[in-house]
Amino acid sequence: MDTPTTSVSLLKHSQGIGDCPGFLLAASACDIRQINTDQLDLCLIKSEKPCSAAGVFTLNDICAAPVEVCKSTLASSADAIGGCVSNSGNANACTGAAGLADAKAMAQAAQKATDSTAPFLVCSTGRIGRPLPLQPMLTGIEDAAQRLDATADSSLVAADAILTSDTRRKVATAQFNYAGQTITVAGMAKGAGMIEPNMATMLAYLATDLSASGAVLKSVLKKACDQSFNCISIDGDMSTNDTVLLFANGHSGLAVDDSSELMAAFQEAVDRVCAILAEKIVGDGEKITRLVELIVAGAPSDEAAEKVARCVGNSLLVKTSWYGGDPNWGRLADAAGYAQVGIQEDRLDICYDDVPALIAGQVQSARSAEWKSIVHQERFRITIDLHLGHGRYRLLTSDLSEAYVAFNKSE
Amino acid sequence: MDTPTTSVSLLKHSQGIGDCPGFLLAASACDIRQINTDQLDLCLIKSEKPCSAAGVFTLNDICAAPVEVCKSTLASSADAIGGCVSNSGNANACTGAAGLADAKAMAQAAQKATDSTAPFLVCSTGRIGRPLPLQPMLTGIEDAAQRLDATADSSLVAADAILTSDTRRKVATAQFNYAGQTITVAGMAKGAGMIEPNMATMLAYLATDLSASGAVLKSVLKKACDQSFNCISIDGDMSTNDTVLLFANGHSGLAVDDSSELMAAFQEAVDRVCAILAEKIVGDGEKITRLVELIVAGAPSDEAAEKVARCVGNSLLVKTSWYGGDPNWGRLADAAGYAQVGIQEDRLDICYDDVPALIAGQVQSARSAEWKSIVHQERFRITIDLHLGHGRYRLLTSDLSEAYVAFNKSE
Repeated sequence: MDTPTTSVSLLKHSQGIGDCPGFLLAASACDIRQINTDQLDLCLIKSEKPCSAAGVFTLNDICAAPVEVCKSTLASSADAIGGCVSNSGNANACTGAAGLADAKAMAQAAQKATDSTAPFLVCSTGRIGRPLPLQPMLTGIEDAAQRLDATADSSLVAADAILTSDTRRKVATAQFNYAGQTITVAGMAKGAGMIEPNMATMLAYLATDLSASGAVLKSVLKKACDQSFNCISIDGDMSTNDTVLLFANGHSGLAVDDSSELMAAFQEAVDRVCAILAEKIVGDGEKITRLVELIVAGAPSDEAAEKVARCVGNSLLVKTSWYGGDPNWGRLADAAGYAQVGIQEDRLDICYDDVPALIAGQVQSARSAEWKSIVHQERFRITIDLHLGHGRYRLLTSDLSEAYVAFNKSE
Repeated sequence: MDTPTTSVSLLKHSQGIGDCPGFLLAASACDIRQINTDQLDLCLIKSEKPCSAAGVFTLNDICAAPVEVCKSTLASSADAIGGCVSNSGNANACTGAAGLADAKAMAQAAQKATDSTAPFLVCSTGRIGRPLPLQPMLTGIEDAAQRLDATADSSLVAADAILTSDTRRKVATAQFNYAGQTITVAGMAKGAGMIEPNMATMLAYLATDLSASGAVLKSVLKKACDQSFNCISIDGDMSTNDTVLLFANGHSGLAVDDSSELMAAFQEAVDRVCAILAEKIVGDGEKITRLVELIVAGAPSDEAAEKVARCVGNSLLVKTSWYGGDPNWGRLADAAGYAQVGIQEDRLDICYDDVPALIAGQVQSARSAEWKSIVHQERFRITIDLHLGHGRYRLLTSDLSEAYVAFNKSE
């Protein structure tokens, strides 16, 4: 290769989607929550020229109207998409035929207001089961369309407009060089799973200035999601609205497909942006106090490892003990055991960071002061090695606090 | 039939296992928790003559030493069992070969101390991963054996000695008549699932004065458990020690097998005692404030109905909304949807008691005051009808309170 791809690097100060040339952003405040607020709750992402796009969506049987609309638009027009309109404050889920009409109306209004020749995608996040306040949203779309630009400010307020109970903006940008050209993959995201009170969504948007077919984007995005957004859990509640979208506008003049030299770098850039956004989502999980990297190794298969990781990572007793800084390895062993993948107690190792608490089923009391102190950290790693095979899974998860219960006990 | 079986009735004031003729009980205090307490923590159940027995046990890969010992003893000697020794305060789980030796030592000590010709079963409940303090327990077994009798007092203290974080004793007794003879099925139980902090067990013991083979008992007990203990959930954490035992001593002089006229009444009596004990377990779930009877109907199959019921009944967001008295049907629909059994939103009905909140996916706002008030009750029923088939499942479950998190955050 005379034009080798440089290694992928992350921008220290990401500005979100606006880091990617050829995308314009704007946000507006429509009081979608109907609580007399001027909080930003709607944003537009427009590709200067029609772009290709791909999406990964919730597997929930009950899926929100905007998810249906995205799927259908991508099925017919993945290689020519105008952009995306998103709102927070209302999920437009369990809203029946009226909800579907509203989602389509949002997408059409965005296309029209931005003078786009290609259809828009649409995402919503917020309370389930309430009709959208469509009229103020249509006004908000027209308003935002007038202010679309490529500034960092617009990009950052767009990233703010999709937040619900998140406490922090979530953006990430990766770049690499190819043939003397800088290629960008930029992204923004909001809230983890169904951790939001009465609200239902994790949303993430990624954009690149490569060109690629919708099919290629879908394959890249699927791989990245499997290693990032699909490996996080706060409360185990899968939402009705989960959506991750990837847009490619070709602004760099470079194209990528499965045979391209730059595919590996592109996949890595998408992987890394997704991984960072996913970690930011868990780290900002509702009322969490600790972030736990849970690694299950030595399982009979990767699927078995995932099963164990999800049983442990979603166990109330495990999560409450983490909250208390209690290294209760017995609860870990119990939860691992009810995954029913054939765990043998006398082969089981459990380590906190690199300190063994259990080796071949024997508790390592001599080092208990060490592993007990690790569980008091804000972030730590637990490795459960079953010594049964080569299956492996990594789950980013969190503790469960009293504040989570208090926060979610009513609307 | 000239000697028809009378209908099964429940005793208004059960005294537990002691209601069943031919069983002797006693309890003692061994300070198994090693906290300088004189709390009762060990009990003996002795059958005056060797009885038959059957057990249903945890499916957890990590199963406690006493569970292993029970399984092995029942495999070789289900038709000649001397009784059972139980302790609270230590689960004897994840204790390796030493734990297994301790469990066997407990059973052998109980057999010896009671001069029994048949082997004893053994159960433990409490903290996982700590060695049993065997010596004081052996003393406690000898002490209890001296005081074995058939009085109500002994029966009730035995029911107390198996409790951990339970706040109430759990006993139930059913009786019916056959051929002029009163037949009894009596039972006692403790704590639900792994709701106990650092403790791991639901235990239940039933006794009857019929005679029956171990095989017949096993079939009857399995059926009863599937409709009772296996249909409850507090926190979704399956324990390492779950055990339900049924003893039959033949004291009435009557035998039961699959061809007996009295089989139906016996099954019903066992079913009802199990159902009551299971409900008492959920009702005394750790720090719960509401008991919810969740019925999923119209599912493609019973298995699909169970999947939906467990997703809904174990959802943190659903449980926290119940705690807050918030009739958040959107969270119910979301959790039902991620069971992924093919739910169609426009067929979905959700009722609180008999008041519809959702019919064919349409929210019934006109009656919202009614269904909102139901969720404030201490006990209510939710019916989710999928209108997809005839599958049905009933799960008894509870809310999740801040106090649960606080109680479980450390040992």
